[in-house]
Amino acid sequence: MNFASDNTAPVSPEILAALSAANEGSVGSYGADGWTERMRAELRAVFAHDQLAAYPVATGTAANALALATLTTPYGAVICHQEAHVATDEGGAPEFYMGGAKLMTVPSTDGKITAAQIDAAMARAIDGGIHHVLPEMVTITQATEWGTVYSPTEVRAIAEACRRHGLKLHMDGARFANALAHLGCSPAAVTWEAGVDVLSFGATKNGALAAEAVIFFDPKVATGFERRRKRAGQLWSKMRFLSAQLIAYLENDLWLRNASHANQMAQRLGDGLATVPGVSVLQHVQANEVFAAMPEALMTALRAQGAHFYGWIDVPGVDLPVVRLVTSFQTSSSDVEAFLAHAGAAKRLAA
Amino acid sequence: MNFASDNTAPVSPEILAALSAANEGSVGSYGADGWTERMRAELRAVFAHDQLAAYPVATGTAANALALATLTTPYGAVICHQEAHVATDEGGAPEFYMGGAKLMTVPSTDGKITAAQIDAAMARAIDGGIHHVLPEMVTITQATEWGTVYSPTEVRAIAEACRRHGLKLHMDGARFANALAHLGCSPAAVTWEAGVDVLSFGATKNGALAAEAVIFFDPKVATGFERRRKRAGQLWSKMRFLSAQLIAYLENDLWLRNASHANQMAQRLGDGLATVPGVSVLQHVQANEVFAAMPEALMTALRAQGAHFYGWIDVPGVDLPVVRLVTSFQTSSSDVEAFLAHAGAAKRLAA
Amino acid sequence: MNFASDNTAPVSPEILAALSAANEGSVGSYGADGWTERMRAELRAVFAHDQLAAYPVATGTAANALALATLTTPYGAVICHQEAHVATDEGGAPEFYMGGAKLMTVPSTDGKITAAQIDAAMARAIDGGIHHVLPEMVTITQATEWGTVYSPTEVRAIAEACRRHGLKLHMDGARFANALAHLGCSPAAVTWEAGVDVLSFGATKNGALAAEAVIFFDPKVATGFERRRKRAGQLWSKMRFLSAQLIAYLENDLWLRNASHANQMAQRLGDGLATVPGVSVLQHVQANEVFAAMPEALMTALRAQGAHFYGWIDVPGVDLPVVRLVTSFQTSSSDVEAFLAHAGAAKRLAA
Amino acid sequence: MNFASDNTAPVSPEILAALSAANEGSVGSYGADGWTERMRAELRAVFAHDQLAAYPVATGTAANALALATLTTPYGAVICHQEAHVATDEGGAPEFYMGGAKLMTVPSTDGKITAAQIDAAMARAIDGGIHHVLPEMVTITQATEWGTVYSPTEVRAIAEACRRHGLKLHMDGARFANALAHLGCSPAAVTWEAGVDVLSFGATKNGALAAEAVIFFDPKVATGFERRRKRAGQLWSKMRFLSAQLIAYLENDLWLRNASHANQMAQRLGDGLATVPGVSVLQHVQANEVFAAMPEALMTALRAQGAHFYGWIDVPGVDLPVVRLVTSFQTSSSDVEAFLAHAGAAKRLAA
Repeated sequence: MNFASDNTAPVSPEILAALSAANEGSVGSYGADGWTERMRAELRAVFAHDQLAAYPVATGTAANALALATLTTPYGAVICHQEAHVATDEGGAPEFYMGGAKLMTVPSTDGKITAAQIDAAMARAIDGGIHHVLPEMVTITQATEWGTVYSPTEVRAIAEACRRHGLKLHMDGARFANALAHLGCSPAAVTWEAGVDVLSFGATKNGALAAEAVIFFDPKVATGFERRRKRAGQLWSKMRFLSAQLIAYLENDLWLRNASHANQMAQRLGDGLATVPGVSVLQHVQANEVFAAMPEALMTALRAQGAHFYGWIDVPGVDLPVVRLVTSFQTSSSDVEAFLAHAGAAKRLAA
Repeated sequence: MNFASDNTAPVSPEILAALSAANEGSVGSYGADGWTERMRAELRAVFAHDQLAAYPVATGTAANALALATLTTPYGAVICHQEAHVATDEGGAPEFYMGGAKLMTVPSTDGKITAAQIDAAMARAIDGGIHHVLPEMVTITQATEWGTVYSPTEVRAIAEACRRHGLKLHMDGARFANALAHLGCSPAAVTWEAGVDVLSFGATKNGALAAEAVIFFDPKVATGFERRRKRAGQLWSKMRFLSAQLIAYLENDLWLRNASHANQMAQRLGDGLATVPGVSVLQHVQANEVFAAMPEALMTALRAQGAHFYGWIDVPGVDLPVVRLVTSFQTSSSDVEAFLAHAGAAKRLAA
Repeated sequence: MNFASDNTAPVSPEILAALSAANEGSVGSYGADGWTERMRAELRAVFAHDQLAAYPVATGTAANALALATLTTPYGAVICHQEAHVATDEGGAPEFYMGGAKLMTVPSTDGKITAAQIDAAMARAIDGGIHHVLPEMVTITQATEWGTVYSPTEVRAIAEACRRHGLKLHMDGARFANALAHLGCSPAAVTWEAGVDVLSFGATKNGALAAEAVIFFDPKVATGFERRRKRAGQLWSKMRFLSAQLIAYLENDLWLRNASHANQMAQRLGDGLATVPGVSVLQHVQANEVFAAMPEALMTALRAQGAHFYGWIDVPGVDLPVVRLVTSFQTSSSDVEAFLAHAGAAKRLAA
Repeated sequence: MNFASDNTAPVSPEILAALSAANEGSVGSYGADGWTERMRAELRAVFAHDQLAAYPVATGTAANALALATLTTPYGAVICHQEAHVATDEGGAPEFYMGGAKLMTVPSTDGKITAAQIDAAMARAIDGGIHHVLPEMVTITQATEWGTVYSPTEVRAIAEACRRHGLKLHMDGARFANALAHLGCSPAAVTWEAGVDVLSFGATKNGALAAEAVIFFDPKVATGFERRRKRAGQLWSKMRFLSAQLIAYLENDLWLRNASHANQMAQRLGDGLATVPGVSVLQHVQANEVFAAMPEALMTALRAQGAHFYGWIDVPGVDLPVVRLVTSFQTSSSDVEAFLAHAGAAKRLAA
């Protein structure tokens, strides 16, 4: 019953098999190999965009930090949600890669930001003139840190605000597959067609060993990306082993199958918890995360039964502590049902 | 006949098998797993040092840049050879990670630097006072970029110069296994016993998929390393797959067996080329690289036969162009003999 | 009637005279001169601290950024008020000088932060582990951006929280003289005796041409400051002309006389505005700034009479727009009375 | 007899008078004042260029570092002479401001670099591909660190090499007035007409208190300069006092008169030393610096007579130690003659 994070899971067998398959003979290093070429072609097909530039890296933090650094000057700023992964969980990587540019955070209860918040942040920054740093970019997370999903319409509204102010739009897609499995739309519809400039396309949390792709939908804005990746120590010499992971991830819709399973498990977990007296589920469960407020005693009881999960930040207006439960491609129905049974039983005992 | 680089090679089967073996169940992320613990224990055993701190990362550039940044202030400098990988082949990664500190290069024909050069650099820097940046560290490459190997005595002399001036000593061991296979001494003898403070322990060029370890022999100086690695996007969530590579690399002396084979192939290549009229081998072949001066026409003829290798930088006093030939754990005797046969034949035809 | 900022004022005649007096003969450059030595002695006397290290620079932004960078690692963070000058008005200088470290802001309505906020920020950061940046420092502004002044007791409480968490404490004293003139205590009592580690001692806003001093009360923590100042291009070659300004600023209590005058003018302005119907003064007027909520029409009427001042940020719970009025050593009683007369007259006309 | 540096000199009386004249009333801060506007107009007239953008800062290091940072990416490089001030005497400021970009140094005996060296550096960098940092800029010093002066023809040849390779050209004009006084050409002829993109126009070494201007001849490339200056803490609030210095510096050709005097003093010093047996003057004395090789005993004797000067770096092929003698607008004929008399007398005694 490990709901601590989707990155405690192992690797999809298909992806591991792809590594073995790629382990044949000498090939060009640093991306001059057939796997990397094919990875790019696959992503162009999946996103229905024959111009996109795609660069694999090993971690989501690297993908985000490189994407932001490529499109922001060191004296600029990036608008993001106050609980965005880039702001709270990447150890300052965006600031490091951007050379000191600022993250400007805006709040909300569901992890999403709005066009109006972008307008307001820009008005305040412009009012401060040369003394205030000026945002050059917006980053949104899909699915968000609260397990919610932006619709294409919501993304479009944000992208329009970006265009009004001359800002670039980045999407942190560490859980992009989960968002897409929820939306059921095309990958294009919620990214470049909606106005996203650059996407961190995550695979690690959803079955890869260590692989993400930074995708620029307009290759002209990717200037310097390759040099930045190199000088960040993020350019693999044996690149084929990054690219092969991504190919296997996309092949036969492995990515969407993995994500759908994880989402279903989260859905069942959320639905089940909602029926446990004294427990409240805090957000619409749309991707693979469930946030639930529950008594401390119940948390303790569940952990005593072997369940793993993190306590989350306090939520204003919610008296009970909040926990986060994350499902993955490997989460089993039996683990979910066992967790729910323990939760129900513990509550009954307490009553 | 691929002698372009040791990173065009695939992965040792033992290492690939270790990835599969590690792909079982949910485990703690970011290094809170048994593989990472065991990797650390293995390195402590190999280096006969029960205190060392070891941190895996995916690339040699990341290992070097993190090691230098941990021990140098942003307003300091690092003394290195003018053709050191950190100075010429890492796209500015050391400067990026160090926050703008300088590399101060010193020349030599065999890739090694000397204590006297360190003394001279320090004298000049101190003479410049506050206006000149002050070195805080020295980095040497083992084996060097010219395929030569520092003896323990040579390392000790450099370390003594470092102590005289209050400098830390880093060893870039991207090809440490090849150096050690040549020296035949213990790993300790040419590192911490000789005065090395921090080692980039390479595995990727010698059979791993993507794995290096940064090893601090005094864990007290490693302060901040983990935070630096995180904010560099170099901390893997599924860390077990980095650690498992390193374990397999060390197990049953795979690393030394791989390196010995590569060295033998280089030795044979060097010996063979030395007998080809008009070709001269430029350095003592000690590790897995051969540098040879040869006529342009011979280079062309060899490439026409399917050989891959890079032209190298011009060498003062050598009229002919210089090529670099790199062997790996996968280089076959037949490839080496075929290359030598083509070289001999081409020369005879030309005569 | 220029109340836009204290830096629209000219230079105190005493300070200009000091520049002329220093313009004699050749002297050592970069601080190897008698003026710089005397400046240090004067500051040691004023702060009753014979060990302090004091370094002059030309701007307040440079003073703050250098102070923070000296005591924070690039992967760390600094806790400050959300409207602190370092956070909103220095164009990202702290992040630049610190090499990408973060400012973590906390809110309040009067510009002050509290020990409890520091405790909470630390708890959250520690809970985030390696993924969250860890604060290493706190900076407070004296007088604050809302014209309020920390008492020695308040500073001491903050310093105690800092000690609890191993944080250094910086005071941005761009308006330190105004704060001290209000408090009437010794310079020591509200700085090092209360636990401040480093002070940006401002002079420019209070009569200097361009001069601030960064004062470390424990010279041991100032390691590297001089090299950082040099590489920031903040080390003057003709340093005597920075030091001479500071000497004249301190001599005969010029700094306190200038600040007292400015404070009195602000007090009168605040008292007068409080009697104007429809105007409310928002904070205790303790230094040389007055914040007043007033109808848009009154703002317009006052500007039409030649008054200069800035509109300020919106204040939650206050319906009217807010203006900031700043007085300086040169503000005349007649300007203040004229402003108040215009304000009263405009209100009467509107009634 | 102070020949240590031109920055040991005081301030030209005309410039000090201008500070007093500017000390009237309240004016807009941060450059929104009449002096700054007039300064810009004066520079446009002097350089016969009605579009140039000019920004005052207080130090030469700041001027250079900001100029380089504005036109170089953090992952790029700047080609310069190996003894360039930016490379050896600015404490790493260029690397800091550029965010870690590299200085690539090339050698020569007279302080000048050539188009051929630029071509060679570019060929090598391009050959290294993504692994080698790519130069984006060239910086030359006028007058050079060896007191020599580039002719307009020499500058043009360098600018042509820059255009061939897509590089921007910066001129470090800390001693630009001395170079111009030697050349006798127009300021335009040796800067923008010859292909210079950005000039650090020095005044401090030649009579100002602390004032330099960064001049972009194409204002379109200055994007971001103002924000960079702000976040470097280099934007003065009371800007009129920087601008007023520059106006007075240009008015009535004060800058050229000061420089001509300094050059004449250096010329006389060089001519005189050339006649002292055992002393050799190493470079053509073209600006205000004399480099002379002389016996250690003579150096000691001169210092015993009260002469101040620095020993310089060793020069290959010159057996004697080398000293640098710098003259300024304040150097008196009597000091020069006294120095020469002491030199001659000391030699005679030694004979």
